[in-house]
Amino acid sequence: MVRRTIKGIAFDMYGTVVDVGSVAEACKEVAPDPAAFVSQWRAKQLEYTFLRTLMGRYRDFWKVSEQALEFTIQRFGLEVSPAQRKRLMEAWLSPIPYPEVPSALPRLRERYPLAILSNGSPKMLRAGLERSRLRPYFRWVISVDSVKKYKPSPRVYQLAPKVMRLGKGEILFVSSNSFDVAGAKSFGLRVCWINRSGVPLDPLGLRPDLTVENFEELRAALE
Amino acid sequence: MVRRTIKGIAFDMYGTVVDVGSVAEACKEVAPDPAAFVSQWRAKQLEYTFLRTLMGRYRDFWKVSEQALEFTIQRFGLEVSPAQRKRLMEAWLSPIPYPEVPSALPRLRERYPLAILSNGSPKMLRAGLERSRLRPYFRWVISVDSVKKYKPSPRVYQLAPKVMRLGKGEILFVSSNSFDVAGAKSFGLRVCWINRSGVPLDPLGLRPDLTVENFEELRAALE
Repeated sequence: MVRRTIKGIAFDMYGTVVDVGSVAEACKEVAPDPAAFVSQWRAKQLEYTFLRTLMGRYRDFWKVSEQALEFTIQRFGLEVSPAQRKRLMEAWLSPIPYPEVPSALPRLRERYPLAILSNGSPKMLRAGLERSRLRPYFRWVISVDSVKKYKPSPRVYQLAPKVMRLGKGEILFVSSNSFDVAGAKSFGLRVCWINRSGVPLDPLGLRPDLTVENFEELRAALE
Repeated sequence: MVRRTIKGIAFDMYGTVVDVGSVAEACKEVAPDPAAFVSQWRAKQLEYTFLRTLMGRYRDFWKVSEQALEFTIQRFGLEVSPAQRKRLMEAWLSPIPYPEVPSALPRLRERYPLAILSNGSPKMLRAGLERSRLRPYFRWVISVDSVKKYKPSPRVYQLAPKVMRLGKGEILFVSSNSFDVAGAKSFGLRVCWINRSGVPLDPLGLRPDLTVENFEELRAALE
């Protein structure tokens, strides 16, 4: 049982605690097909984190997101003013928590110390957690920025036991992103996959210890 | 001028020398939307090469392609028999050269020793080059398999100067894949980007030395 062994929980941020769909909302102003636009933007953003880590050319998540936006604008052949670009980027600073998150977090915090472990830059995480009013629930906010590598590098997941001062097997890492589940599991954390939309798991030979549909199910599984 | 300094040329294989559209042809048998199916398959195949290299969990390109196919079948909710899966995978063993490749390669070979530097497994490269009758043009066929890492890791591009016994700056690396252009340039090779479809370059701060639309333009630029 995961419940008996864990002593702390670390959460991925974007797509897990907060909805990047809120960024899609901002794209409506510039893109005829906002869903396709944000999907390409998000895919490139992730691809650039992988490529930069593989090449050893780290730039922070804000810069990576700007470059991914630049590519996406060009790819769709859109005209986007500097003011519009600024608004698109700033959508990342005001992400919206998934609906059940604000009620589940206080309950989880009663039993475990909580952390964020995210690709986001310190500035993005600070703004996102303040504006969503979630900051008080987390004892630690850990950005990959301190190791200059992105997920799923083991150097990133190593930050969780180091900062939380717990053993690998005592930490439950929670993410909606399949590659993040694989990375955390590969490193040796206990892992919960939040699969909201019923997508298949990437068959990489690394399976989560627990799969739930949302935070409410996670809370129930841990009580 | 690139022409004056280079002493050998290394080519990416899939999407550069041979058309992975030939794999799309094979997908018609199983997928209602073969273009979307092959696009997802290819995207996952690449993603898994990035993830496995970042996690330090190398499996060869054949296995990675099988796992990416498995994901894609599940994602699209299709029923695919073992015999059909086998045919889909075998399409990777009979890729079709781009139309101008068979006439351009002999001309290039008159001036430079040529190599393949590919993510493909040795078995896949052997079959693909034999069946497309391109094998005689290449002095070296280099697979990432010997370093157990995928592009754009610098360890992969390091294979080119090592095997070809040339300096980094004496090798022209040719690829259609933007991430591969970035990786080779980041390592220090001279790079030609073959951009057949006019897509934007990924704005990673790494630009090719030369951009052409096809092999015929590359040949002309080097004469």
